[in-house]
Amino acid sequence: MSEPGVLRDGGLREAVGLVLSTVTDPDVRAARLVWSALAEPGDSVAGSLVAALGAVDALRTVERAAAGGLMPGVPGVEPRELAVQLERWRPRLGARLLTAVAHEAARAGLTLLAPEGAVWPERLADLGAHAPVALWVRGDAAALGALDRSVALVGARASTAYGEHVAGMLAGDLAGEGVAVVSGGAYGIDGVAHRAALGAGGLTVAFVAGGADRVYPAGHAHLFARIAERGAIVGEVAPGGTPTKWRFLQRNRLIAAVSAATVVVEAGRRSGSLNTAGHAAALGRPLGAVPGAVTSATSDGCHRLLREFDATCVTCAADVRELLGEWGPGGAAPADDRPRPQAIRVLDALAARAWRDLAEIARRSGMSFAEVQAELGLLELDGRVESSADGWRLSR
Amino acid sequence: MSEPGVLRDGGLREAVGLVLSTVTDPDVRAARLVWSALAEPGDSVAGSLVAALGAVDALRTVERAAAGGLMPGVPGVEPRELAVQLERWRPRLGARLLTAVAHEAARAGLTLLAPEGAVWPERLADLGAHAPVALWVRGDAAALGALDRSVALVGARASTAYGEHVAGMLAGDLAGEGVAVVSGGAYGIDGVAHRAALGAGGLTVAFVAGGADRVYPAGHAHLFARIAERGAIVGEVAPGGTPTKWRFLQRNRLIAAVSAATVVVEAGRRSGSLNTAGHAAALGRPLGAVPGAVTSATSDGCHRLLREFDATCVTCAADVRELLGEWGPGGAAPADDRPRPQAIRVLDALAARAWRDLAEIARRSGMSFAEVQAELGLLELDGRVESSADGWRLSR
Repeated sequence: MSEPGVLRDGGLREAVGLVLSTVTDPDVRAARLVWSALAEPGDSVAGSLVAALGAVDALRTVERAAAGGLMPGVPGVEPRELAVQLERWRPRLGARLLTAVAHEAARAGLTLLAPEGAVWPERLADLGAHAPVALWVRGDAAALGALDRSVALVGARASTAYGEHVAGMLAGDLAGEGVAVVSGGAYGIDGVAHRAALGAGGLTVAFVAGGADRVYPAGHAHLFARIAERGAIVGEVAPGGTPTKWRFLQRNRLIAAVSAATVVVEAGRRSGSLNTAGHAAALGRPLGAVPGAVTSATSDGCHRLLREFDATCVTCAADVRELLGEWGPGGAAPADDRPRPQAIRVLDALAARAWRDLAEIARRSGMSFAEVQAELGLLELDGRVESSADGWRLSR
Repeated sequence: MSEPGVLRDGGLREAVGLVLSTVTDPDVRAARLVWSALAEPGDSVAGSLVAALGAVDALRTVERAAAGGLMPGVPGVEPRELAVQLERWRPRLGARLLTAVAHEAARAGLTLLAPEGAVWPERLADLGAHAPVALWVRGDAAALGALDRSVALVGARASTAYGEHVAGMLAGDLAGEGVAVVSGGAYGIDGVAHRAALGAGGLTVAFVAGGADRVYPAGHAHLFARIAERGAIVGEVAPGGTPTKWRFLQRNRLIAAVSAATVVVEAGRRSGSLNTAGHAAALGRPLGAVPGAVTSATSDGCHRLLREFDATCVTCAADVRELLGEWGPGGAAPADDRPRPQAIRVLDALAARAWRDLAEIARRSGMSFAEVQAELGLLELDGRVESSADGWRLSR
């Protein structure tokens, strides 16, 4: 390619060279930086172009099109949609502006992550054309590569003492067990989750709606500094980017996509954390909700998730580990805990302190000897019943 | 049949004639009374014999066998099981004892119900061989015929103010809407449910573990009198029968079987109401549980039901009506409330107060025009979005 373009701009190339990144190829690194400055979060036209052509060629193609050149056909991109986005990207395509972005990133010490480099979270691929074109990290970029065991703990900004207690318990327990705690850095549940994870000496990652170098809310400056020391603050928009309503919603999709499971701790009926839950459900990620009093408006959203989104009821860290597919010392997942009718009758006919023989159990349960024997066998396998020469009794 | 038997005993026949019953045939009425005095709740040998031969012939057959006669083969009854049960029934087979039972029933004004008479609840047939051989009613026997729209509201005896508040709210609202409230007459949640149903002028039925003429717990004498005035107290065992642990557990199966749905309002990890829930689940009845704070031990059992038994989260009377298959003014059941990923993106791109056109929504959502149009169509059908010449906006 011989035509001029921002990637050939000496000032931009020099500035990009100062930016920390896991991407080693200088052209790719520069192109990803440019894309992150051009595209709003979740822009599927940008996503489709970059996926089809690669970040560098996609950028060159767009520059040609912006200059009136022909646009090749790209799967998933309609010409009139591209025209709409081009108008949006055009004012951001100047070398001076992009150089300023690179300088800002370098000054803030942010690390640019992209799929071509290390520690890019694999789960983001599930977002398809809506996957981010790049991520910016304040703190330890390696934290993004350590989200295999992770849970998003999110919830209301206007949390109650109850919600904060539970968020702290879950985040502390899970982080202490090596599960990374992902959240959104907001006041309320998010902040408690980050703090408790840090307090437990665990890993925590905050996804923010604006630039990773910005502190929003301002009151969380100290918390963000602590997160950046041991974990990471991650933004999808370029450094200095302001958090807008749209960017908050798109930030939520990242939290849901990057985490192995999402748990909503406390949420009113219209809490933003329900948007995160919606993304998690839509992505097929395990979704949990912490119940609360039905008289508490701040648990309404959680109950709605339990009722309408088929979320799993989460009461403790062990419940979250189950959501992650991790089972306790017992080992395997319970096959199906729905009770068998006969099992209930047999269990009802047994005692914990006295041994009972077959005839006695049959008499008490009103079941046949054969039925009782079959059921006792299953219950013994489950470890719920134990046998001796004197008969059977309930296990403790 | 010419051989002597309790059904030919003059004193018993006379006493049975004094007993209120929906069963018109005197022999059947007497035989059902005898069976209710012989068999412990849920006795499948008795159930199988009565189902196969009818109450009268089953009784004559058993009397012959008890006298050393031959026993015909009956499906579901093994000879050695029959032998065990015969030993149990034998001491209760005397005419004098049975006559005393009939006199006690007549004196207490109890009504004997059996499948051969009116108002026998059809749902009991789902218990198969474990269905009751008879029911005794103190109060309005017709109440048993009015359980088509009914819900079992059960829970811990050691309830909290929270559980009592919710039980009262649910029972009052549902009873006021014509849903019969079934419970177990115990202290705590049960008692609150009965009281609130009465307070709302609705129907309530208490299933007790002992005879329907007994008041247990004694502190509920006044409540039981009020229930009997407007609803019914129902016992499976013969009048005067004591409530034993086994009978409590079997009483639970009746509550679950007779109700269209079961809701556990508050329950500790080992609450007896979980046994009722287990019976409901085993019978395939809709099962609900009211959530509470995860820090409250009296909600542990409810959370276990939500997690392990796939119970539905119940927060209000409307939730219970949904459990009964009754939907609100909207009409039909929601098809599937799991969010479509694209729907979330489109909803996020819309506003409630401003109209947005297709290009704007496509730009904001990062989706193609075609995708946006398809999704807007579905959302408009759902009533979540409205359109005008100016574009689309969120419905209020």
